[in-house]
Amino acid sequence: MFQPDTYTTRRKELRQKVSDGIILLIGNEDSSMNYKDNHYHFRQDSSFLYFFGLDLQNLVAVIDENGQAILFGDDFTIDQIIWTGKQPSMHECGSKVGVQNTKPLRELTHYLSSKKKVHFLPPYRPEQAIKLAEWLSIPLNKVSEHKSVELIRAIVSLREIKTDEEIIEIEKAVNTTVKMHTAAIKYGKPGIKESEVVAKVHAEAIADGGNLSFPIIGTINGNTLHTYYHGNTIQDGDLFLCDSGAETSMRYAGDMTRTFPVGPKYTSRQKEIYDIVLNAHLTAIEALKPGVLFKDIHLLACKTLVDGLKQINLMQGDTEEAVANGAHTMFFQCGLGHMMGLDVHDMENLGEQYVGYTNDLTKSTEFGLKSLRLGKALKKGFVLTVEPGIYIIPDLIDLWSKTKKNEEFINYGNLQKYRDFGGIRIEDDFLITEKGYKLLGKPLARTTEEIEDLKRS
Amino acid sequence: MFQPDTYTTRRKELRQKVSDGIILLIGNEDSSMNYKDNHYHFRQDSSFLYFFGLDLQNLVAVIDENGQAILFGDDFTIDQIIWTGKQPSMHECGSKVGVQNTKPLRELTHYLSSKKKVHFLPPYRPEQAIKLAEWLSIPLNKVSEHKSVELIRAIVSLREIKTDEEIIEIEKAVNTTVKMHTAAIKYGKPGIKESEVVAKVHAEAIADGGNLSFPIIGTINGNTLHTYYHGNTIQDGDLFLCDSGAETSMRYAGDMTRTFPVGPKYTSRQKEIYDIVLNAHLTAIEALKPGVLFKDIHLLACKTLVDGLKQINLMQGDTEEAVANGAHTMFFQCGLGHMMGLDVHDMENLGEQYVGYTNDLTKSTEFGLKSLRLGKALKKGFVLTVEPGIYIIPDLIDLWSKTKKNEEFINYGNLQKYRDFGGIRIEDDFLITEKGYKLLGKPLARTTEEIEDLKRS
Repeated sequence: MFQPDTYTTRRKELRQKVSDGIILLIGNEDSSMNYKDNHYHFRQDSSFLYFFGLDLQNLVAVIDENGQAILFGDDFTIDQIIWTGKQPSMHECGSKVGVQNTKPLRELTHYLSSKKKVHFLPPYRPEQAIKLAEWLSIPLNKVSEHKSVELIRAIVSLREIKTDEEIIEIEKAVNTTVKMHTAAIKYGKPGIKESEVVAKVHAEAIADGGNLSFPIIGTINGNTLHTYYHGNTIQDGDLFLCDSGAETSMRYAGDMTRTFPVGPKYTSRQKEIYDIVLNAHLTAIEALKPGVLFKDIHLLACKTLVDGLKQINLMQGDTEEAVANGAHTMFFQCGLGHMMGLDVHDMENLGEQYVGYTNDLTKSTEFGLKSLRLGKALKKGFVLTVEPGIYIIPDLIDLWSKTKKNEEFINYGNLQKYRDFGGIRIEDDFLITEKGYKLLGKPLARTTEEIEDLKRS
Repeated sequence: MFQPDTYTTRRKELRQKVSDGIILLIGNEDSSMNYKDNHYHFRQDSSFLYFFGLDLQNLVAVIDENGQAILFGDDFTIDQIIWTGKQPSMHECGSKVGVQNTKPLRELTHYLSSKKKVHFLPPYRPEQAIKLAEWLSIPLNKVSEHKSVELIRAIVSLREIKTDEEIIEIEKAVNTTVKMHTAAIKYGKPGIKESEVVAKVHAEAIADGGNLSFPIIGTINGNTLHTYYHGNTIQDGDLFLCDSGAETSMRYAGDMTRTFPVGPKYTSRQKEIYDIVLNAHLTAIEALKPGVLFKDIHLLACKTLVDGLKQINLMQGDTEEAVANGAHTMFFQCGLGHMMGLDVHDMENLGEQYVGYTNDLTKSTEFGLKSLRLGKALKKGFVLTVEPGIYIIPDLIDLWSKTKKNEEFINYGNLQKYRDFGGIRIEDDFLITEKGYKLLGKPLARTTEEIEDLKRS
């Protein structure tokens, strides 16, 4: 937890950015797995953490019209102490984050009923919608429509610029993430199961005192962007894609991807594709600096991928035209990167249009670009990922080749020979600085040679 | 997954036990952590798994008035295939579990609207309540009241008796659980953090291809029954309590506890208390057989604990009277055990009164007994845990000693010297057989000597 002043200052800045009405932030509660009291690990809401810092269940916070913060929550009963241990009192909790005014939860409904205007964020868990509907007498299916865009924009404007103390915490997350990937690369050997590699990766995150920032993708089918199946036995000749990240005890995220050979070396075909992805990765990184549209950097990476794919006769024709026509999305179906902070896709619950785009730059609905979460101009203090990839998806080849889609740019004949290739992604985390960028965390093996060396070590 | 016939037979038996109306079972969806698309690992509803076997998101199943099963769900779109991989079609999914009739989800509301009586289970996740309210036009806060007790009783009567193929699966879970505890006992050495031990335990569960059946309790503060804080550095002289269990890929649970010294040996005081708990554990196990009330075995264990605590002058007076007055709950605040199967607390979402008690035996509301999840007579085929413990809770000492509560049975003067002792629990899993019981899984070190030997090995 940061010092109380950090939270007080953040709340003051937020209050100044939101015109009238009270600001309501709902802390999370435990989520049930297969019965009420069997919970997933608790994850506090990130905006609640940003402004009120308390990583505890069942809290609700308000910043009133005068800027006064009020924390609604209940002290523990003896039964709760027996089952889950002693907790600081609500009063003590408030002090830790600069809040003097605490009230029991039962007073919340009455308190809210006297307020004319309540700014709240769009719900992303069903219980949030249920609470808002009840507290504010809004029909359940209309709750999202009543979200406060003013509050969203104000929060984005604060959270998107990372402070020095936040960057220290993010680097901790990235350094644990580096340990996770080092473990995967060294431990991923022929004959074991994907789940055994994933177990080592997971253990590194927990051992460092935090958790995962998102479920581990650890697979020999790297072409499936978000697969969580870990049942395959891995063999010499396979490529293993590991996309994983740590969350620190303060809930800041890291997020990296490496794609390494299960055997000692990449095959020449794997190395060829790997180097195309790496070239796009490096080209994109060199373009990172304040003022540049991330959408343009995404498109630059796409062109670099196309140029590389032309070299090995999987694509053809004019590069600019190919990208303008979306032909590259046969290979790269998603976005180049996203903001990262208290959420691995930072603030995604606030709406990607508000986080990654502007009034003048609307998020595209085209295949490919619709998955680019960040498009707007970079600013000093942004933290983001750069993660180009090449994914060979048999179903997509079949779908497009049936209608000869983009056949002027895609060499379907050659592509068929790569049907079972899989996928490669390379991902690192960056801070945007005044003049350019800074790689976050200790550098991790990234070229094919470095990764083969690390496997041998 | 079992053979299709298993599911067909289970559904047929269920239909015979429920009089009229259709039976509705709601499969789970993904649960969001900090934004909609960042999910916790998926956990299917256990009753859905029991009758429909499919471990996939967003399915709803019906057994209609004639016993016909219908599976509502949608085939994957190309976008879903790109992001999460190819899935079998709904038709193929149905075939795997003996269901011929599949329909898209959009037909569900219309289908249900024509039904006069719909049996459903009480919701334990907020989205289940929202769906039921919408589908059946029940006010959201009244959904639980409309649950079908007839359906609950029918499901309990089937799920409580484990079949041979289920027992094989449960033993797999317990054997992975044994590996988890072996790792903890061997790895838990002075100078490391609780989180590092917990990481090893977690990794064993994942490496075996499943997951955890509940969040790991791994702590030097074993007196807190369900603590999830893992930040302490562990030292020679500390006792480490590890309560954890694996869930197999079919979602059957294991659940064990061991309490071991961080250093090479238990202190003499630790050994003394440990042996009292072990004696209660063994005494309870010997009483396991069909026809005996588990509540009586719980009370037998409580008396054994009191007898032991009298030996070391922490308790005094008549043992029977002490237990009748609840004096033992100063040391043992919870229940002796619970059913185990597809849920670690099996069927807890159906209601403990229906799972663990009968019309003639109501669950107590007294401190201690109110946490006993299973009280009714044992039957062949039950699978359950036996987990007595002694927990020294400073807040409870302070609360009771203020009013001299049970002072004829508790030696508060001596007890104060144990304030910082912590807690000890010993837990194994058992099948009730025709004549008695069977320990599930490979035996794991349980006496202080065996555990010290295992640490040395």
